[in-house]
Amino acid sequence: MNLDDILKSRRDTRHFTQDDVPDEVIEKALRAGHWAPSVGLTDATRYFLIKSDEVKTAIKDLFLEYNQKAASLTDNPEQKELYNSLKLEAIEEAPIGLIIAYDRSVLNQFTIGTIGSNEAVKFSSVCAAQNIWLSLTEQGYGMGWVSILNYYQFKKILDLPENIEPLGYFCIGKPATNYNNQPMLQQLHWKQKSEAPDCKEITSLHLKKTFEHNAVAAPEKKRADNFETLLQDKIDSKTKPLGALGTLESLAFQIASVFGTLNPKITKPNIVVFAADHGIANHGVSVYPQDVTRQMVTNFLNGGAAINVFCKQNDIQLSIVDAGVNYDFPTNSKLINAKIANGTQSFLHAPAMCERELELCFEKGKSVVAAIAKTGCNCIGFGEMGIGNTTTASVLMSLLTGFSIEECTGKGTGVSEEKLIEKQNILKKAIENYSGQAELNQQLAYFGGFEIIQMAGGMLSAFENNMLILVDGFICTTAFLIAFKINPKIKQNAVFCHCSAEKAHQKLLDYLDAQPVLDLDLRLGEGTGCAIALPILKSAEAFLNEMASFESAGVSRK
Amino acid sequence: MNLDDILKSRRDTRHFTQDDVPDEVIEKALRAGHWAPSVGLTDATRYFLIKSDEVKTAIKDLFLEYNQKAASLTDNPEQKELYNSLKLEAIEEAPIGLIIAYDRSVLNQFTIGTIGSNEAVKFSSVCAAQNIWLSLTEQGYGMGWVSILNYYQFKKILDLPENIEPLGYFCIGKPATNYNNQPMLQQLHWKQKSEAPDCKEITSLHLKKTFEHNAVAAPEKKRADNFETLLQDKIDSKTKPLGALGTLESLAFQIASVFGTLNPKITKPNIVVFAADHGIANHGVSVYPQDVTRQMVTNFLNGGAAINVFCKQNDIQLSIVDAGVNYDFPTNSKLINAKIANGTQSFLHAPAMCERELELCFEKGKSVVAAIAKTGCNCIGFGEMGIGNTTTASVLMSLLTGFSIEECTGKGTGVSEEKLIEKQNILKKAIENYSGQAELNQQLAYFGGFEIIQMAGGMLSAFENNMLILVDGFICTTAFLIAFKINPKIKQNAVFCHCSAEKAHQKLLDYLDAQPVLDLDLRLGEGTGCAIALPILKSAEAFLNEMASFESAGVSRK
Repeated sequence: MNLDDILKSRRDTRHFTQDDVPDEVIEKALRAGHWAPSVGLTDATRYFLIKSDEVKTAIKDLFLEYNQKAASLTDNPEQKELYNSLKLEAIEEAPIGLIIAYDRSVLNQFTIGTIGSNEAVKFSSVCAAQNIWLSLTEQGYGMGWVSILNYYQFKKILDLPENIEPLGYFCIGKPATNYNNQPMLQQLHWKQKSEAPDCKEITSLHLKKTFEHNAVAAPEKKRADNFETLLQDKIDSKTKPLGALGTLESLAFQIASVFGTLNPKITKPNIVVFAADHGIANHGVSVYPQDVTRQMVTNFLNGGAAINVFCKQNDIQLSIVDAGVNYDFPTNSKLINAKIANGTQSFLHAPAMCERELELCFEKGKSVVAAIAKTGCNCIGFGEMGIGNTTTASVLMSLLTGFSIEECTGKGTGVSEEKLIEKQNILKKAIENYSGQAELNQQLAYFGGFEIIQMAGGMLSAFENNMLILVDGFICTTAFLIAFKINPKIKQNAVFCHCSAEKAHQKLLDYLDAQPVLDLDLRLGEGTGCAIALPILKSAEAFLNEMASFESAGVSRK
Repeated sequence: MNLDDILKSRRDTRHFTQDDVPDEVIEKALRAGHWAPSVGLTDATRYFLIKSDEVKTAIKDLFLEYNQKAASLTDNPEQKELYNSLKLEAIEEAPIGLIIAYDRSVLNQFTIGTIGSNEAVKFSSVCAAQNIWLSLTEQGYGMGWVSILNYYQFKKILDLPENIEPLGYFCIGKPATNYNNQPMLQQLHWKQKSEAPDCKEITSLHLKKTFEHNAVAAPEKKRADNFETLLQDKIDSKTKPLGALGTLESLAFQIASVFGTLNPKITKPNIVVFAADHGIANHGVSVYPQDVTRQMVTNFLNGGAAINVFCKQNDIQLSIVDAGVNYDFPTNSKLINAKIANGTQSFLHAPAMCERELELCFEKGKSVVAAIAKTGCNCIGFGEMGIGNTTTASVLMSLLTGFSIEECTGKGTGVSEEKLIEKQNILKKAIENYSGQAELNQQLAYFGGFEIIQMAGGMLSAFENNMLILVDGFICTTAFLIAFKINPKIKQNAVFCHCSAEKAHQKLLDYLDAQPVLDLDLRLGEGTGCAIALPILKSAEAFLNEMASFESAGVSRK
């Protein structure tokens, strides 16, 4: 027989005679297998012979279980009937059972040819199987490859080691038929083998341009015309389902847009806490005495407050500003002095500040932030401390949004229901007493707080300096509302870090159509929400800059 | 030449003469390939010829890149030198390049012989490769199999369709040497081919037993009798209004309680991602091909996935576990091998796994986590990767909670409304087909996934080891549900990191009466929610340990 005759007459045999298979036939066949290629000369192929009827019966049972399962996979009743009529193995009849397996553990050593895929190891064993098949055919014997098996159980009942992976069970014997010199499945009209091999020539390369991220990385906001498309493409090219990083994706889009680069980097993040006292606190709107403003500023300077702990945790620079605390701090403290006065006047009967003080608040707030921008910071969080400032924020919110006082007040840092109503009554009375216009600056001067207005000025400066603006809780968002009334574009740069437990905050966020990043029931102020949210922003930045793309990682897109 | 001579003289050839290869030689060789077996008569083998120098050069470049990468895998300088001296291809010199590939799409129809493993399709093509090799040898030509390639790029530059999977690049020509009638690697003393095939006889069967869960209590914590009072006092003494840190306060309380100390410290946080494949994925329940599981595991190992980026950002150790991916990974120390099998079976008509496999899942999941606990980690996040696993999670949730399939299914990583209904119908049919009891182990074996059950086992082990358990999204919470059914006390240690965009997740969290920390519309899995939430837990830990008290800071209490 010449090679082509052997190749052509090799059959996947499922019908055997009773004839024995001499040992020499098997030995010769296994030698043929041994001459097969073996990647990196690993010699990983292993053979197991089975002659025991008990073992064959157990394997046959495994086959029957899975064959039934296979039959259930077709819903076509004709196909199922034909399938069930097929004889797909001869496990019990064939005199010799052979398991051809490979030893995965060869990969524990450095192995040539397995870096692109270690499947080369198993492919070597398949080549051995084919050699054995051809050798048996030449010797006048046949083989059938049974792959309809639960391989886990198969290994288990045969007690094969974990690292030995069988390719299947091979039935060997004298063939009882050659199926009219064609595959059995063709003879039985299951399917027709195609006439000829399917071969095409590849004559050219398929080249795909990839875009250069760095090409657009200009420090100035000089962007490509299609910057947003490029940015969205970059986000969508990451190895994750489209949109699966939810809020992180919108944050990444925003951060990149604010910085005007596809590779944005938050540098020297800073949280600036503005502290001031409020004349209105004298009317019992807070559960804490006014002196706590000063005490807490000292606590900030000594590193013991919540904002200190969170800034330290997340590697954020902390700046403390005296915007108008009712206390004269030592001149050598680490405090930024932007003091307007020792607290505002109570707005119950008179303006909290004069117009010149209001103007100074904007100026000082702006210059504090401009100085921080000069240090290389491009991401600034705003925080506040001031006993009574939720009350100030409530009245400002009511005036600037048109919501009622009831809708704009909450329990602050912890007043009772009774106190809340008292607070609302004070505010209503204060508004009644106001004889000015419905004009922004007049309203701000009459009802404002030094730290709130300085925050608003600071935010406007942050926008001018292309910084990300981190907005904290209720009071900070009220400051943002003021800045937003002055320049609505500022919203592009604002990240609303959390939704406060102070109930008016959700309402104010809705008014601004703002989505807060966190909802942790915080109601502390100090910029703590900004500090806690920063790692989330950094996650957004990190995925955009560091995640692999489908292309670079070789992952299939859907 | 007789068959044995051909088999023996076939060489993996890397040295060719300049001689052309006549078309008839290739045609005859491809016919030989065509006579190879083809499982279920699928005729899935495809051939592509390459004669263009431009194409060859591009492929050579791919080889060079991966060959360099391969060389870097050995630390042994002698081995590296010898490796670099080896000629492992002849891509540019060989006159003919051949790609032998298989068409995965044949599996879209009912295919005989692929139920135990669909690898039989690719094995058929390997048999064709061996036939071609033998035919070329007989005709006086040679072939060399190049497997050192980035297959993704390879497909890309040749514009091969997604469903066409190449076995490698084959160089064909007139051999310039027969390497002294031995494998080249042996001639060059890289390795010695073994003398004879490795063959053993199996004469008896190995039998097994069944298992039961035994819930183990966490070791007793030695605490003061009034531990909880002391802890709450400590939280309330911090310089902030009572309760003003909201969720951070309850997290601090939980962390301190789990670790049994007023000064808790999260040490060596670790996220362990369990990956496995799901037979149900073959029924089109996901928008991604199953191969993406393997591709993403490779992405994890290469550091390019979202979870890598977030773990790096937040200083979290990452552990990747092969719980049962349908692929044999290269030995890579960064992958923890806990493979049960190459994916589960489809539970549409038959059990996903057998009881022994279920038992193994619990065992392996537990031992993975126990090993991590031994490294000093006391805070472990759980993540998963597995195409089709939202479907598995949905059916498990439905069975274990009693909610309807509609309530337990969502769009996964992005299926359409139409697909969603199809998915629901498949699940209903699967439940109808289930003839077992409403008993946990039976249900888990029938409908489970290797990675889901291993996560559940891992969580039980984390509880036994007094670890904080970070629960990610929908699939991870389903694993938690399983662990919770086995030992409800485990909830004490669990932090539910986020609420997923997958709609059933909120329902499942409600069922467990669980409050998620974040709500960022994430639906990625991989443990990303755990990684992103860790800084929040650290904030809780930090405020409890580091903030000043009213007394120490001299701040007035209200």
